[in-house]
Amino acid sequence: MFRSPEDSAASAVLSLLLEVSANPKSGNVDREHDFEDLRYEHFLISAASAFPYFLKTAKRKKLCILQAIDKSREFGVDTNVHFGAFLLLFPLVAVWESKLEEYPTNSIDFLKKTSYRDSVNIFKAFQLCKPRVLKAERLSLGDEKTLFKIIREKMNVYEWMRLSPKENLIAKELTEGYPVSMGGAEFILSSENDVNETIVLLYHKLLSEYLDSLIIAKRGLEVAKSVMKLAKKAFESKNFEEFKKLDEFFIREKINPGTIADLVASSIHLALSEGWKIEAKGFRTAEWNK
Amino acid sequence: MFRSPEDSAASAVLSLLLEVSANPKSGNVDREHDFEDLRYEHFLISAASAFPYFLKTAKRKKLCILQAIDKSREFGVDTNVHFGAFLLLFPLVAVWESKLEEYPTNSIDFLKKTSYRDSVNIFKAFQLCKPRVLKAERLSLGDEKTLFKIIREKMNVYEWMRLSPKENLIAKELTEGYPVSMGGAEFILSSENDVNETIVLLYHKLLSEYLDSLIIAKRGLEVAKSVMKLAKKAFESKNFEEFKKLDEFFIREKINPGTIADLVASSIHLALSEGWKIEAKGFRTAEWNK
Repeated sequence: MFRSPEDSAASAVLSLLLEVSANPKSGNVDREHDFEDLRYEHFLISAASAFPYFLKTAKRKKLCILQAIDKSREFGVDTNVHFGAFLLLFPLVAVWESKLEEYPTNSIDFLKKTSYRDSVNIFKAFQLCKPRVLKAERLSLGDEKTLFKIIREKMNVYEWMRLSPKENLIAKELTEGYPVSMGGAEFILSSENDVNETIVLLYHKLLSEYLDSLIIAKRGLEVAKSVMKLAKKAFESKNFEEFKKLDEFFIREKINPGTIADLVASSIHLALSEGWKIEAKGFRTAEWNK
Repeated sequence: MFRSPEDSAASAVLSLLLEVSANPKSGNVDREHDFEDLRYEHFLISAASAFPYFLKTAKRKKLCILQAIDKSREFGVDTNVHFGAFLLLFPLVAVWESKLEEYPTNSIDFLKKTSYRDSVNIFKAFQLCKPRVLKAERLSLGDEKTLFKIIREKMNVYEWMRLSPKENLIAKELTEGYPVSMGGAEFILSSENDVNETIVLLYHKLLSEYLDSLIIAKRGLEVAKSVMKLAKKAFESKNFEEFKKLDEFFIREKINPGTIADLVASSIHLALSEGWKIEAKGFRTAEWNK
């Protein structure tokens, strides 16, 4: 359990930093890979500039996702970096007084108490950074009609997310009490590997178990399914050379499992709430540094 | 000029992140190099966990270096990561309302108004993380007698730092109004290169112009001088292959110019106060990614 709103906010920032830094993380930005319009530094800026809004959320129990994205733009980020990760992290920070096992219930309670104005702000945050999202049959983030409906029906964040298609992993986390992230936190807390290895393993584990919403949105279901299969093979090998090969292949094929990366960040945050520490036991093995 | 204490605190954290991430940064931890007892992740933790204390310092005009180092230890950092960088950044954050050209005067005024208790806290912070420092003829951080003298003579931070030997670059910055960092900020703001290149160039420029206090402390004056010469050659070549070669050489020889890295962080913070933005113009060239 975190000791203070400050600790929880610092942990949220740290989760984002540890997630983006872990490598090799097949198909995603990591400390050795930039994309053409999205670079490692964008993640550092977005994480650092979000701190005051995590802190505000922790203290006032009020989602500040829009303000965080606004601020990152002021600091020079002009693309989507953390929209999904913010959606996952802000509610966790809002209920920072929770013990690990209480996060599922407390976060759902919190989201049920949000107002339709919170939904409107999330919609606006989306408009600012325009990440590619799943086209929901109804109430997609990409559709202006969604905004009218949110306002007309005064839908809070929980009610809105409940209407997302089941492939939307983030909406599922928010409405079902973070099942994937809770599992991720457990994985981290029981890991015998060092910090980078642990995060890389978790990333590939989740990639082998869940269809990435972002890949479905960008490349379709079939590609998403084969990504899962390839990740499973790599994860089972526990061989970092295999992760590197997969990383190169995904980058070449422009396959970017962004949602899985978001889930890794929320998993790390939950693990940090239980006091997960980065010990100096063992460093990256030779394979990592080749 | 920063718009708020929050912006200034976020910028201080971001400066630390951008500094440690820049690579190749000859002889220092960067996103591709860990040391045996000091790894990249330690810098991420220390930077993220310092945020609340930067914010407190910005709001209350009170140095919180000891608390920041305490907190980083709580988050799992058991070695010296940012002692020097904190010494440089906290006073800058305390006078965050300054325009760029006002930082020298305002920071000196601020340090003159500190109390001997601030000095005691810095001494305690040092004891916690034990960085190697120059053995000053008198009043070294490593010497218990220093603490008694600080208390007996009620020396504030400014008075204490004034007694440091002239090779102590950080004490010089603090007592002379950040001449090196101000020059560094100018270099950054007029750079035509992308963010990583700019920081790498600045690092090697400073390395070619100043004797690193940490190298003098660890390896002696002669080694520090030859480091300067090698850095000059690399900087003048502006060739990233040369930086990489120098990096490999320094790492092999265990030459770690930590103080220069600290000065890069304070330079970045000052540049950010002037609105330095990370634009997506141009990415790391092929040479960087080899």
